[in-house]
Amino acid sequence: MRRIKAVVYGVGAMNSIATRMMIEKGVDIVGALARSPDKVGKDLGDVAGLGYQTGVIVEDDPDRVLSTREADIAVIAVASYMSDMYEHLRRCAEHGVNAVTISEEALYPWNTAPMHTAELDKLARQNGVTITGTGHQDTYWVNLVSLVLGTSHRIETVTGRASWNVDDYGPEVAKDQRVDTTVEDFDQWLAEADRPPSFGRNTLGALVEDLGVTVAEVTSTTRPEVADQPVTSTALGLTVEPGRVVGFTDVDTVRTHEGMTLTFEMTGRLYKPGEADINDWTVTGEPELHLSNPAVPTGVTTVTQLVNRIPDVINAPPGFVTIEKLPRLRYRTYPLGAYLDKGRPRFVRKRMLS
Amino acid sequence: MRRIKAVVYGVGAMNSIATRMMIEKGVDIVGALARSPDKVGKDLGDVAGLGYQTGVIVEDDPDRVLSTREADIAVIAVASYMSDMYEHLRRCAEHGVNAVTISEEALYPWNTAPMHTAELDKLARQNGVTITGTGHQDTYWVNLVSLVLGTSHRIETVTGRASWNVDDYGPEVAKDQRVDTTVEDFDQWLAEADRPPSFGRNTLGALVEDLGVTVAEVTSTTRPEVADQPVTSTALGLTVEPGRVVGFTDVDTVRTHEGMTLTFEMTGRLYKPGEADINDWTVTGEPELHLSNPAVPTGVTTVTQLVNRIPDVINAPPGFVTIEKLPRLRYRTYPLGAYLDKGRPRFVRKRMLS
Repeated sequence: MRRIKAVVYGVGAMNSIATRMMIEKGVDIVGALARSPDKVGKDLGDVAGLGYQTGVIVEDDPDRVLSTREADIAVIAVASYMSDMYEHLRRCAEHGVNAVTISEEALYPWNTAPMHTAELDKLARQNGVTITGTGHQDTYWVNLVSLVLGTSHRIETVTGRASWNVDDYGPEVAKDQRVDTTVEDFDQWLAEADRPPSFGRNTLGALVEDLGVTVAEVTSTTRPEVADQPVTSTALGLTVEPGRVVGFTDVDTVRTHEGMTLTFEMTGRLYKPGEADINDWTVTGEPELHLSNPAVPTGVTTVTQLVNRIPDVINAPPGFVTIEKLPRLRYRTYPLGAYLDKGRPRFVRKRMLS
Repeated sequence: MRRIKAVVYGVGAMNSIATRMMIEKGVDIVGALARSPDKVGKDLGDVAGLGYQTGVIVEDDPDRVLSTREADIAVIAVASYMSDMYEHLRRCAEHGVNAVTISEEALYPWNTAPMHTAELDKLARQNGVTITGTGHQDTYWVNLVSLVLGTSHRIETVTGRASWNVDDYGPEVAKDQRVDTTVEDFDQWLAEADRPPSFGRNTLGALVEDLGVTVAEVTSTTRPEVADQPVTSTALGLTVEPGRVVGFTDVDTVRTHEGMTLTFEMTGRLYKPGEADINDWTVTGEPELHLSNPAVPTGVTTVTQLVNRIPDVINAPPGFVTIEKLPRLRYRTYPLGAYLDKGRPRFVRKRMLS
């Protein structure tokens, strides 16, 4: 078994956990990249809070790191949207390094960022590498749902509801999520805001692609979530009074020419005591089916999937390969290198195929 | 697209639903087999309660049907255990017909019926056909669970609980499940009974194989389920008083050399009003994970998976191929023939491969 060599691309909260998990799963970290002067020049173990030093110094020059370390893969956690991700993914492809990212839009970006995605797909094929977006959505919003749909005879509607706690992500996110505004202010903001498509679009895009159906109509709406009792925000250091906004819900709906309707509601709001993240799906048709993952730890499962997907991405054919086309995600009992396709020399096979 | 030709092997409750679903999914029924004189000689549509005639007459000679209809697959619902299934599966293999069955033990029979399974595997390879056991367990007890495990970093325990309502399956099953006996009678029966391994063993066998771990110890226990209020059995036409048995739970546990413990509890008992089938799984380690399918319609999802698996079984390499080795089950938007691997002439390719 050969060991996988990875570059940690971005050393924030998510990739700090990913670093520990990769090391525990037998991955060699051959480089680490960050922009903040607080991180650059320090040992990755210190920046990621591992409690031990790794011998890997955090650097700020992606081109140098990607071109000199013979990495199998870059594990990227720096941005949510493809407009920001493009330069990072392009750079990986140009240096012949596979890339896996938790960028939410990268999960299925063909509809929401078609130009960037097509360019990256072409570049990845030319350079014999794979680019994949994964994260919590991979299993919980797409592949688990797809598997439940596989037990249906006739689908009429697919309706998913997921939530995350605004208070877990700091004051900036809480403000972005309009916490402690009035409903009137919220409505005015919503009318004027130039918001990118919600990540529900990417989730539904992957499900539609997986089902092999065709889109007749897409609709997206947003509604405020309003406090029905005083709710405390630790991130903002205040208590939201009843009647004021604690966050909002994006609702994306796809109607297909084949007669099914898929809806995904994603809520980001302050939680009341005792509340936890949900992932609830209902399928109507024949028969009616339900899927639930009570108290799913969205942050951790984002990272576990980022790490466990590494062998799948390295094994995949070149291109921008979205998760519904990868093998089903499996637990990694052994070091990640044990899950590489046998006999494929690093870089060579993919380049020959491309 | 070519159409799939199937033989309905056994025309009971499950295969009657399967017949309708196959016809609705563009499968040509080219034969039907039953043993009961009440069914043989009648139109399959009448026996299966379809409300229309199919032009297919139910026959009682499997060798004739399997040897003359050029069927792609036999869809078998006649028995639960491999000892009873052996002759049927052997016959299909000898006639070069793929076989898919809801026999519970066939889900993963390598541990509980190793001789029969090895013989059938060899015969299937020789004849270029695939044999697969599927049913409710396929997705709900194995593949959904495996997918959730794929979002774990470190597994300590995997614990599943599933239930079915004894009253749904007639008086014989209710008696087999010891309904309305005393706890003392139950304990005496349990001590003396020569019971085959519970189907939990097959479920855990598939999960262990999928995880790539090795078994250190297997334990199986059975406990009575006792009424805590009067519970009515329609199947038996009586009410079970508090303190008496309403069914029992089989608990199978596998400890692995890799340090994880997998437990599956399957309960068959009378339900109280408002109760429904459950499928609840908890994973401990890092992180803790939960999966639930509230009110899962076990009978229907048994049949939907039997039908939706048909293309996977025809496409699979020859042998006794268990479900954790098949592609993940998908919804069939189009007629089942659309999901066949392109360019494979019926029979020929597999035989050449074997």
